[in-house]
Amino acid sequence: MKIAVMPGDGIGREVTAQAVKVLKAVVGHGRPLELVEAAIGQAGIDAAGDPLPAATSEIAQKADAILFGSAGMPGDEEIPFMMRPGASLLRLRKELGLFANFRPAFLFPELIGASTLKPEVVDGLDLMILRELTGDVYFGEPRGSGLNANGEREAFNTMRYSEPEVERIAHVAFRTARTRGRKLCSVDKANVLEVMQLWREVVTRVGKEYPDVELTHLFVDAAAMQLMRAPKQFDVIVTGNIFGDILSDAAAMLTGSIGMLPSASMAAGSFGLYEPVHGTAPDIAGKNLANPLASILSMAMMLRFSFEQAGNAGRVEGAVRRVLAEGLRTGDIFQPGCTRVGTEEMGDAVVAAL
Amino acid sequence: MKIAVMPGDGIGREVTAQAVKVLKAVVGHGRPLELVEAAIGQAGIDAAGDPLPAATSEIAQKADAILFGSAGMPGDEEIPFMMRPGASLLRLRKELGLFANFRPAFLFPELIGASTLKPEVVDGLDLMILRELTGDVYFGEPRGSGLNANGEREAFNTMRYSEPEVERIAHVAFRTARTRGRKLCSVDKANVLEVMQLWREVVTRVGKEYPDVELTHLFVDAAAMQLMRAPKQFDVIVTGNIFGDILSDAAAMLTGSIGMLPSASMAAGSFGLYEPVHGTAPDIAGKNLANPLASILSMAMMLRFSFEQAGNAGRVEGAVRRVLAEGLRTGDIFQPGCTRVGTEEMGDAVVAAL
Ligand SMILES: CC(C)[C@H](C(=O)O)[C@@H](O)C(=O)O
Ligand SMILES: CC(C)[C@H](C(=O)O)[C@@H](O)C(=O)O
Repeated sequence: MKIAVMPGDGIGREVTAQAVKVLKAVVGHGRPLELVEAAIGQAGIDAAGDPLPAATSEIAQKADAILFGSAGMPGDEEIPFMMRPGASLLRLRKELGLFANFRPAFLFPELIGASTLKPEVVDGLDLMILRELTGDVYFGEPRGSGLNANGEREAFNTMRYSEPEVERIAHVAFRTARTRGRKLCSVDKANVLEVMQLWREVVTRVGKEYPDVELTHLFVDAAAMQLMRAPKQFDVIVTGNIFGDILSDAAAMLTGSIGMLPSASMAAGSFGLYEPVHGTAPDIAGKNLANPLASILSMAMMLRFSFEQAGNAGRVEGAVRRVLAEGLRTGDIFQPGCTRVGTEEMGDAVVAAL
Repeated sequence: MKIAVMPGDGIGREVTAQAVKVLKAVVGHGRPLELVEAAIGQAGIDAAGDPLPAATSEIAQKADAILFGSAGMPGDEEIPFMMRPGASLLRLRKELGLFANFRPAFLFPELIGASTLKPEVVDGLDLMILRELTGDVYFGEPRGSGLNANGEREAFNTMRYSEPEVERIAHVAFRTARTRGRKLCSVDKANVLEVMQLWREVVTRVGKEYPDVELTHLFVDAAAMQLMRAPKQFDVIVTGNIFGDILSDAAAMLTGSIGMLPSASMAAGSFGLYEPVHGTAPDIAGKNLANPLASILSMAMMLRFSFEQAGNAGRVEGAVRRVLAEGLRTGDIFQPGCTRVGTEEMGDAVVAAL
């Protein structure tokens, strides 16, 4: 198990340290564990003048999986685009072919009060958003700015998908639905965009190979509505890169606790990058206040997806559930009557609960 | 007052009839009212083989405003793109230069229970989403499909904005904020897209002319989150066409009653198209079940924006509030203890309450 550890910036450092602690505890002496730390984001700029240093790319390429914290600093916008700490993540996705982004949105029963939605609307929520991560308007060429025919300044990006790109994410989506409730909703804007007509056509065709999965389609505006109106109607949602960016954050917010949500970004084989959904939260960084559970749960996804250790993944998830049941809470998920703990103490509690 | 009336398809016909009834009642004998009905959507196909017949375009061009119902029928996807009933609306927006789409999301206190969000999160909600409506990936060229360099099928659309396009919607946004809470949030994806970097730059520059309006910026994924987490933080939101499509529907759903929400799509002067946010709802069409209040409130926006009749607009809005307070409800907003009424009866009640 060769794991590249990239804590990155802000609270990324503290939460990743807890995930590593739990990882060591759960894997135990069963398998050799090789952890290689690599600088990314502002940390990469500080170390090597590049948010994604060449040495970091190399470490990533040689690893079986990446445990990622968070990258980006306030004021990023002033730096040239591809040199921004936050952009290091985009470059990494493309370089490593991490095309399938899994964003589960599930609600821990103990934290149901944190949602801004009524309890009956989100109680038992468990949905998986699968976002295509290396295509679409994020990477489409041509892109840029200049003068148009009228001599006016303009700028443009290209939404683009090829048939094989849609096919491979569709296969991942149907296979994922098979391990869950066998329901897949594909989200597009086929009523307006040619690129999304191709999307719908290809997903529909791939679906013929999975007759046991119920496939539906929604336009992205309707999907945003339905996520808020009746989110429990969904099992797996598959969509393109930019729609997925928006909908996965909306879905995360349904739970009210983004400090709890993990994610996985997978390449074709078992290689993946695992990161908490939350950002760098510079305001609370370095204060032992951050919630490490999203990072710990991301590590559990790593055990399941990259190392076929579903048993250990389940043990970690069970331990997280137990510390919540015991009433331990970091500040972001604190409720009256619970015990407030810091980042380290939460990590220790998960280890103890294992 | 020369008004083109385009009821369109499904419940569009019934709700528009009620809006016309209330319009006649409120304008009274004060001003000559010329109403010209024109076919659009499936009705246009039936009448002239085109969802947007030439005669309809001509009527629209000669009018001061358009009262629009709803266009589109189930199964649209089978018809060539620009011939679809739903696409007639896109063509109309472009032909008439309707670049500024006003989508208010406000909560009637009587209907607070309809929201899936907790009452304290949405109580008193009153936000305005301003969506650019004639640019972006909806209309950007080049667009289409073909084979890429690897011989794979692909399809593409272009997100494109010119400086003048962003400038004019920005001015509308700042002026709108001035008539409300003087807070404007511009939503983009400037951390990834060049077209959105131009958007942010231009909005920021235009903002210098409105020092009395507080301008903030959010990335679209964060905006989707914040809309769900704390929607009352917003006053006016301005964004591009596709992000606006998604966010305005999400904002509408915050109220839980899209049968209540109006919209206005404005050209450069006082010309505008007014339509309820809801769709054609073919399942309940022709049954006197549809809620006409969104159409009636759209007509009120028309009085205010196209005819400078703020007084009459306020009278209509007040009448709607009174019928709700009296407990009258169509099926979509029905609550125990209220009186269930049909489309016509609701229209009559608004007239009576005037
Ligand atoms: C930081 C940003 C470029 C990134 C994205 O838009 O993909 C982020 O929002 C995410 O979802 O991981
Ligand atoms: C019908 C469709 C083309 C349209 C759009 O995407 O603009 C609709 O969703 C809207 O928001 O008016």
